[in-house]
Amino acid sequence: MIKHFLSTEDWPQGDLEDLLTDAGYLKANPIHNHLQGKSIALLFLNPSMRTRTSFELGMQQLGGTAIVLQPGQDAWGIEFEPGVVMDGDAEEHIKEVAGVLSSYVDMIAIRAFPEFKDWSQDRLDHKIKGLAAHATVPVINMETIVHPCQELALMMTIKNHLKTVHRKKFLLTWTYHPKPLNTAVANSGLLIASKFGMDVTLLCPNEHYLLDDHYLKAAQAQCAAHGATFTVTHDIKAAYQGADYVYAKSWGALPFYGDPTAELAEREPNKHFMVDGAKMALTNNARFSHCLPLRRNIKATDEVMDADYCVALEEAENRLHVQKALMLNLMNQSLKEQE
Amino acid sequence: MIKHFLSTEDWPQGDLEDLLTDAGYLKANPIHNHLQGKSIALLFLNPSMRTRTSFELGMQQLGGTAIVLQPGQDAWGIEFEPGVVMDGDAEEHIKEVAGVLSSYVDMIAIRAFPEFKDWSQDRLDHKIKGLAAHATVPVINMETIVHPCQELALMMTIKNHLKTVHRKKFLLTWTYHPKPLNTAVANSGLLIASKFGMDVTLLCPNEHYLLDDHYLKAAQAQCAAHGATFTVTHDIKAAYQGADYVYAKSWGALPFYGDPTAELAEREPNKHFMVDGAKMALTNNARFSHCLPLRRNIKATDEVMDADYCVALEEAENRLHVQKALMLNLMNQSLKEQE
Amino acid sequence: MIKHFLSTEDWPQGDLEDLLTDAGYLKANPIHNHLQGKSIALLFLNPSMRTRTSFELGMQQLGGTAIVLQPGQDAWGIEFEPGVVMDGDAEEHIKEVAGVLSSYVDMIAIRAFPEFKDWSQDRLDHKIKGLAAHATVPVINMETIVHPCQELALMMTIKNHLKTVHRKKFLLTWTYHPKPLNTAVANSGLLIASKFGMDVTLLCPNEHYLLDDHYLKAAQAQCAAHGATFTVTHDIKAAYQGADYVYAKSWGALPFYGDPTAELAEREPNKHFMVDGAKMALTNNARFSHCLPLRRNIKATDEVMDADYCVALEEAENRLHVQKALMLNLMNQSLKEQE
Repeated sequence: MIKHFLSTEDWPQGDLEDLLTDAGYLKANPIHNHLQGKSIALLFLNPSMRTRTSFELGMQQLGGTAIVLQPGQDAWGIEFEPGVVMDGDAEEHIKEVAGVLSSYVDMIAIRAFPEFKDWSQDRLDHKIKGLAAHATVPVINMETIVHPCQELALMMTIKNHLKTVHRKKFLLTWTYHPKPLNTAVANSGLLIASKFGMDVTLLCPNEHYLLDDHYLKAAQAQCAAHGATFTVTHDIKAAYQGADYVYAKSWGALPFYGDPTAELAEREPNKHFMVDGAKMALTNNARFSHCLPLRRNIKATDEVMDADYCVALEEAENRLHVQKALMLNLMNQSLKEQE
Repeated sequence: MIKHFLSTEDWPQGDLEDLLTDAGYLKANPIHNHLQGKSIALLFLNPSMRTRTSFELGMQQLGGTAIVLQPGQDAWGIEFEPGVVMDGDAEEHIKEVAGVLSSYVDMIAIRAFPEFKDWSQDRLDHKIKGLAAHATVPVINMETIVHPCQELALMMTIKNHLKTVHRKKFLLTWTYHPKPLNTAVANSGLLIASKFGMDVTLLCPNEHYLLDDHYLKAAQAQCAAHGATFTVTHDIKAAYQGADYVYAKSWGALPFYGDPTAELAEREPNKHFMVDGAKMALTNNARFSHCLPLRRNIKATDEVMDADYCVALEEAENRLHVQKALMLNLMNQSLKEQE
Repeated sequence: MIKHFLSTEDWPQGDLEDLLTDAGYLKANPIHNHLQGKSIALLFLNPSMRTRTSFELGMQQLGGTAIVLQPGQDAWGIEFEPGVVMDGDAEEHIKEVAGVLSSYVDMIAIRAFPEFKDWSQDRLDHKIKGLAAHATVPVINMETIVHPCQELALMMTIKNHLKTVHRKKFLLTWTYHPKPLNTAVANSGLLIASKFGMDVTLLCPNEHYLLDDHYLKAAQAQCAAHGATFTVTHDIKAAYQGADYVYAKSWGALPFYGDPTAELAEREPNKHFMVDGAKMALTNNARFSHCLPLRRNIKATDEVMDADYCVALEEAENRLHVQKALMLNLMNQSLKEQE
């Protein structure tokens, strides 16, 4: 049974806590040789800056090697559906991609954004699941419809600033963006905050901006298991009041998925969800963060981004540390034994 | 005199056998430091997945460094013709590319597919020959109009399954594909199977799908030298009957080279050349392979690809091992001496 | 105060001389471990062959790691202006790019060509300056409106051939090219030759091809400080006569900046500025060089490029050595101490 990292939903909180402990150690002691001779393939079906840099660098800092592949650009396009007659654009099936890469490298990471045509299809996350089904080495999610590596970095940052996180108020706020974006980081924000027992509030313009029911229910259940609350609201003031941590993300409204024109009409009136100093003043001296990239003065004002309470850069840096901890874990390398 | 690896036609069978022996050793013992401080530039004028991963990783596993360049994309476009006034798209001449890279790295590998306009030009393989003429370090062919690295991986796989290869029946079968593809792997299949004395059968829809005369004659001569047979047929049943190894590849008909519309009319009626279970049942319990990428249910059925007799993944994995053996050889590194 | 390498104008001649001394040592002794565990991010907003290869390889040869990023292609587009509402194409602000990368790597290098729309904007070099302002690690210029790494390689080559450079005649000649190119290498040619006290002559078709006044004045002042001469001429013969070193570059006429049609009309009559054997025969047995890439028989004839006096390949090779010396210097690594 191969251990993958597809979603934090598959990992117990205790195992995630262990990763965060290791990440803290790696932050203080970055250079090791534990993965000498090991390698990882990084499959990017979409652009990346932080993810690519932190995985490439992290692997090198552990003595290993990362190979970056961009199927459809420098590598062949991939078919993910089983059983099809491959007469379209894709030259290669995920079965072969998974099989070949498994024979070369020790781990495979993939970034595969949704197609943005049909949410009932995209919500199945079939690309990474297809890869994991056919790979004989661990598979890591670098963002599909969830972004579990970002979750680890977020929780590492939260814990650094809030110390105890149980029942602290975590606000996930929708923000405007010119395009209807992926819900992955929003889904992930709910998953990780609820998994660690925070009081979770989801703020969005109206019911059209609710996240997929799967994630709402998962968050609700995880909050309940910790005796914490899960709240959905469209009231900006109420949402910010008393918040200990504000996390912003833009996403497209699922009922208009695949219809950007209709979605735009729904989205345009909501530019005032931009995070600004006045909103942050309503909080319990909260930290603000975002997964980046962030459009300044669209998602959050310069004032917010340049404030001391903005910890987005720290979260980005933590990507490096948590992913190194993750790769060591998936390769069954214990930091303690080898020091 | 610099030793290049442009085509197996330039290398005696014995030297290729030595490479395969070394590859077998490297398969069992992958990590070394023999190429520490050494480097290779990988010039990709076309996409790649296996080739790039296996060369990058292979070099790293030997202690060296690979630099990936994509002229025309992230690097400048290259002019290959001597003496021309460079007023077209290319910003740089192969003389300078070869000279500069030779001053940086210890080996240069290039993937340069044909232009698909004029076979009388493309068959001269002038891009890699121009590079080799001006480079002062060894040049490796990563697929032009032949694909000698694939040949090594193929023969390593054949030898693993058939043990003795002399006069075993090697079937190279044309298959359908939506586009008129490069003949390189087909040419290479003929070259390597004949060089190792197999009974070679080339199966294709009609005389328009014959490979370039150079490769037909080379294969014929090499078979003859081993007392083996070389057969061309358009009869599917006869071709598969008694085959010990089935190798599939699609390619465009040379008489319609540069005229995809006319070629398509010629190609469309031949979809039934797809490799399927019924055809494989005619063989002498043959293994099936393909260089990949492969369009499932176009070139071969899911049944064939998922069968135990399909060794395409093994051939892909062997790319790593044979290329490591090749790089060590070109750098005059002996595995035996240094262990 | 972080030490950047944005322009040689910020660096005293003595410090540049030290870099060249180190580069000479590294040319003879290429492999070291001084930068083990260190890393550099290479941000390419434009194509590159020499620069990318030499930085990637150079870092590896010093024991460190280079990460190549191409914002707008494989990474997110970057906004460089402060305070703007980011409703355009860019997904990310240079503040965050600089901050995030500074948390990952030990140095950041950037290639950011001008926009070619408004020289009054481009001449401010605001992209690299924005990066340097927000980075907390050293920033290296891989070509913006100057190309200081090329300057080091050029001067290393000049010193190898001319031994003493003071008051030797350095000719920077404009050449034709089908497109209006960046003035960076031309600006840099003036800067470095004058900084080292050469007699500098700038040859161009007419006053429209004068370089930006900033660089003309800087070169004039630096020449004057050395008791050397600085001359601008449109007379080909006079320019070549007595030259000890001929350096060619094409660039667009600044008065027509952003108007390629008008600029083309100005440029077309000047194809005869191509460097050829007859012109070189007028010199004092001069060496010829160019930063590459170079269009043969457009900028210089095959005769010139293939002559013994052409040292363009040596200059290209020197990029590797000078950049390694630079990275060691910026990381406060002394070659002498550690040997």
